[in-house]
Amino acid sequence: MLPTAPIIVLDSGLGGLTVVRALREKSPGENIIYFGDTARLPYGTKSGETVTGFVRQIITYLQRFCPKHVVIACNTATALALPKLKTEFEHLPITGVIEPGARAAIHAAGNKPAPRIAVIATEATVKSKAYEQAIYRRRHHAVMDLMPATLLVPIIEDGRNENDVIVRVALTQYLKPLIDRKPDVLVLGCTHYPIFKRLITRMMGSKCRVIDSAEQCAQDVTQRLAISGMAAPDQTVGSLNCFVTDDPDKFRSLARRFLGTELQQPTRVTPEELNAELSPALSMRKAG
Amino acid sequence: MLPTAPIIVLDSGLGGLTVVRALREKSPGENIIYFGDTARLPYGTKSGETVTGFVRQIITYLQRFCPKHVVIACNTATALALPKLKTEFEHLPITGVIEPGARAAIHAAGNKPAPRIAVIATEATVKSKAYEQAIYRRRHHAVMDLMPATLLVPIIEDGRNENDVIVRVALTQYLKPLIDRKPDVLVLGCTHYPIFKRLITRMMGSKCRVIDSAEQCAQDVTQRLAISGMAAPDQTVGSLNCFVTDDPDKFRSLARRFLGTELQQPTRVTPEELNAELSPALSMRKAG
Repeated sequence: MLPTAPIIVLDSGLGGLTVVRALREKSPGENIIYFGDTARLPYGTKSGETVTGFVRQIITYLQRFCPKHVVIACNTATALALPKLKTEFEHLPITGVIEPGARAAIHAAGNKPAPRIAVIATEATVKSKAYEQAIYRRRHHAVMDLMPATLLVPIIEDGRNENDVIVRVALTQYLKPLIDRKPDVLVLGCTHYPIFKRLITRMMGSKCRVIDSAEQCAQDVTQRLAISGMAAPDQTVGSLNCFVTDDPDKFRSLARRFLGTELQQPTRVTPEELNAELSPALSMRKAG
Repeated sequence: MLPTAPIIVLDSGLGGLTVVRALREKSPGENIIYFGDTARLPYGTKSGETVTGFVRQIITYLQRFCPKHVVIACNTATALALPKLKTEFEHLPITGVIEPGARAAIHAAGNKPAPRIAVIATEATVKSKAYEQAIYRRRHHAVMDLMPATLLVPIIEDGRNENDVIVRVALTQYLKPLIDRKPDVLVLGCTHYPIFKRLITRMMGSKCRVIDSAEQCAQDVTQRLAISGMAAPDQTVGSLNCFVTDDPDKFRSLARRFLGTELQQPTRVTPEELNAELSPALSMRKAG
């Protein structure tokens, strides 16, 4: 494996591009392959079995690129699928967004023995209790408040901005009960949410630190690669290639907002093609 | 084929249950098999190729039940997939929701030569122009206004009711530009929307007739079966069996609102199982 091997970043749709953006700022030399499962999004309202099945197909498909690292840049998929898939693909370094987010939340809480930590996330991430586990392991007496914010992903995928009334009403509904509890830290537990980070930070008030799990995840990957001597040389400019399961044009036109720059045309992989990778008949054919 | 053979009703999720409800009121003796593709919903923001692929898999899978009729109880799937799948499954009578909805809209407009007809629907249904085609064919000089209402499906699948601020704000955003144009008729061009029919009717005012495409679709199926002598005998009580691609418990708990009664536990069919039906290797095995 060479340091020039690609990093895979995968998500249900556009949200994971916030991780790609942070990663490219920190490590511009890395070659990145992004996968957005736009035909089957969202993940945040679906079951662990379903989401694990989808992510398993994607990783299986992307192994052909011999990645040096796989980032599950989606909190729901990290919560529901990462532990199982880490075992199944034990030769591949796979990391997610929740551990870095939890670590940063504890760091931001300083030395308070019982900091109040709030998390907004998808319904599936909240139900999984993955954030509670990751935070309690580091600070037993943290006081946690979790809020499922089901509509934020569809609202963001709909391209709405901070001035839209629906955005303001939805954020007020989701954040008001958290604000009332005066948290020390709020974790944005979904890689879509950094799109509204400025507004959320203002709403939470100056006493609450807002943690962006996408940003933390990118930092975590950069550090891991540096430690293992697998970071790409900085003097090169890394590539970004995208794969999507639905319409590439639509993805490309919405991606700018998440990535901050223009994207090369993504390649479409249909759900049927993903599935074919897993069919026993096909595996036999490959083995033969 | 016997009149007791089942009717298949399929949708991306819960919306098609509004068709089932109307169908059971009109024809209580029919045996109904419902399929909700909850692992891959919503359909309304996705491409024609993707939605056609999903619906093709579902119909292929459900052919084992030897249905006498297939109803695509989803406006998006009707708009994007019905014409193609009708040709592919030519031995099967397949109908959708758009033709009955358009017919009812024209009927409601009375003898006005140029009635003003508004339609709210998903982004994909609006883009397909299926409603324009179905209406202009019947009334060349109709004046049409189409409004994509992207967030209504996620809002309804989130279980929100008519008193919720987000519901009111979203409906106002979507309906206000239509109300300003003083339509004679508004078509609810998505089988989810009848959940808010009362509120929408009130907002549109007494001069606008609101057409529920789910209701019209059920009436259309009942008439077709009666004409072809394939209606189930009325003295029996028909069954309702549901299949879903994601969590059956979640589906069951949300279904009550759409169906008006309790549901038997649905059967889960994973996307992988659906896909296996189409794999060439499997077809060969079956043929051999």
